[in-house]
Amino acid sequence: MTQATFNPDHWHVESVRVRYADTDRMGVVYHANYLVFFETCRSSLIRELYKSYLDIEADGYLLVVIEAGCHYRKSSDYEDVLNIYGRVSYFTETRIRFDYKAINRETNELIAEGFTEHCFKNQKGKPCRMPRDLFAILTEREIL
Amino acid sequence: MTQATFNPDHWHVESVRVRYADTDRMGVVYHANYLVFFETCRSSLIRELYKSYLDIEADGYLLVVIEAGCHYRKSSDYEDVLNIYGRVSYFTETRIRFDYKAINRETNELIAEGFTEHCFKNQKGKPCRMPRDLFAILTEREIL
Amino acid sequence: MTQATFNPDHWHVESVRVRYADTDRMGVVYHANYLVFFETCRSSLIRELYKSYLDIEADGYLLVVIEAGCHYRKSSDYEDVLNIYGRVSYFTETRIRFDYKAINRETNELIAEGFTEHCFKNQKGKPCRMPRDLFAILTEREIL
Amino acid sequence: MTQATFNPDHWHVESVRVRYADTDRMGVVYHANYLVFFETCRSSLIRELYKSYLDIEADGYLLVVIEAGCHYRKSSDYEDVLNIYGRVSYFTETRIRFDYKAINRETNELIAEGFTEHCFKNQKGKPCRMPRDLFAILTEREIL
Repeated sequence: MTQATFNPDHWHVESVRVRYADTDRMGVVYHANYLVFFETCRSSLIRELYKSYLDIEADGYLLVVIEAGCHYRKSSDYEDVLNIYGRVSYFTETRIRFDYKAINRETNELIAEGFTEHCFKNQKGKPCRMPRDLFAILTEREIL
Repeated sequence: MTQATFNPDHWHVESVRVRYADTDRMGVVYHANYLVFFETCRSSLIRELYKSYLDIEADGYLLVVIEAGCHYRKSSDYEDVLNIYGRVSYFTETRIRFDYKAINRETNELIAEGFTEHCFKNQKGKPCRMPRDLFAILTEREIL
Repeated sequence: MTQATFNPDHWHVESVRVRYADTDRMGVVYHANYLVFFETCRSSLIRELYKSYLDIEADGYLLVVIEAGCHYRKSSDYEDVLNIYGRVSYFTETRIRFDYKAINRETNELIAEGFTEHCFKNQKGKPCRMPRDLFAILTEREIL
Repeated sequence: MTQATFNPDHWHVESVRVRYADTDRMGVVYHANYLVFFETCRSSLIRELYKSYLDIEADGYLLVVIEAGCHYRKSSDYEDVLNIYGRVSYFTETRIRFDYKAINRETNELIAEGFTEHCFKNQKGKPCRMPRDLFAILTEREIL
């Protein structure tokens, strides 16, 4: 098991603008929606790092969420633009963990931070190792 | 093409309680969520009328939404219990249309009314006729 | 009542990338989510045309959806980028209607087209006229 | 700070049936939606324990999520009925934490387990103590 270093250059950024649909009657983003924002960043990060997650699925792999967590620091509201930062914080041959930070682009305030941990499954739904070339990419990034 | 009669006994009812997640910053149910409430009623109606939609898919049929519409009459809010009434309002061998009414269980006010129209597709994604026994059931109900 | 002309230059465009969260077990975007995509376009269109909808609410107006409809032409899937085109298709002093088209940016296929109709309400929840300057803007655009 | 005992009688149950809208293209419930299922249980638990959360808000209190987490054990799919168990696992005068378990009603399998932690805020958005009578209720339950 290897712990990715905290070098900010390793963080990927993806912006989301808060939709009316994302808000709740408290006037702020409903807490579960941050996991969706994190997904937006993760998809984009995986695409940049390796290939589209759609292609990963086409290759016969599923990336299944096994744990997720989020700390909510400040609220965000309709029309806010959030920069969602994501990075691989940890991986083994069978697991990968992503960390995220949601930061208000205008005020620079930390809104939320969280993580998701995933395992790989094959088309039969059995846990399996990640694609070899993905493991090589992650390992190489770590050394650098 | 046949137009189902308006006999209220043909309406199926399914209750939903409005979740915090369903609301938006206006303090009411976000409009798109009524389509989800309608789905809840439709699933339940199809199950009562014929079989679980899950089994319909297992039989090789997909019921694809081709049109949806909704009139919003009054707002509903967190914790409201809505009775979602649904019925088959129209069908042919290849299409089926459902009408819905969302009524506040406590106040009896009409909150929203809408419809969805669907076609059937086979596993290759090609339009096809609905299962024969479903067509027979719908036809028989109409005569009664 | 005035019907806005169909000049394509009057269409506003906003892109959305389909999230995993937007899809359902049929492998395509869940139908209700197109109303959310339309909202994304509408928010952006209103901001460009007049001011942020957030500011409109701060001015004491609510733009309440009274009707919505959508035709689903083709499916879209995870990672697809959709151009959501929107325009004001109709308005009176108390109502405004938007039309939308969702077009796959890569294939140029029409995925869905729909509309939403809205009335204005004041802070007491009573129907009211739209802001005068907004009405002037809409009227002027129509003449041009 | 007090840790609530693990007496299963203290768990509240609320059932949810998985909607098509809850699923994603992997054919299972999208992970963020379990937080919504937990909310359904929490709302119901608070209502049974004390009063409707709507009334708590009317009393001038907001119950703001400050942390959430979930372990995903098995997948669930469309039409599954999940029993969502919830209980207060911890509270102080200013905070309250709920634990949840989602169990497939038919197979009795543990699908997911998680928690949410909340603080209380007053109408000005400032952290505050929970209502005294709620604190009394929670304290009394603990002693029993």
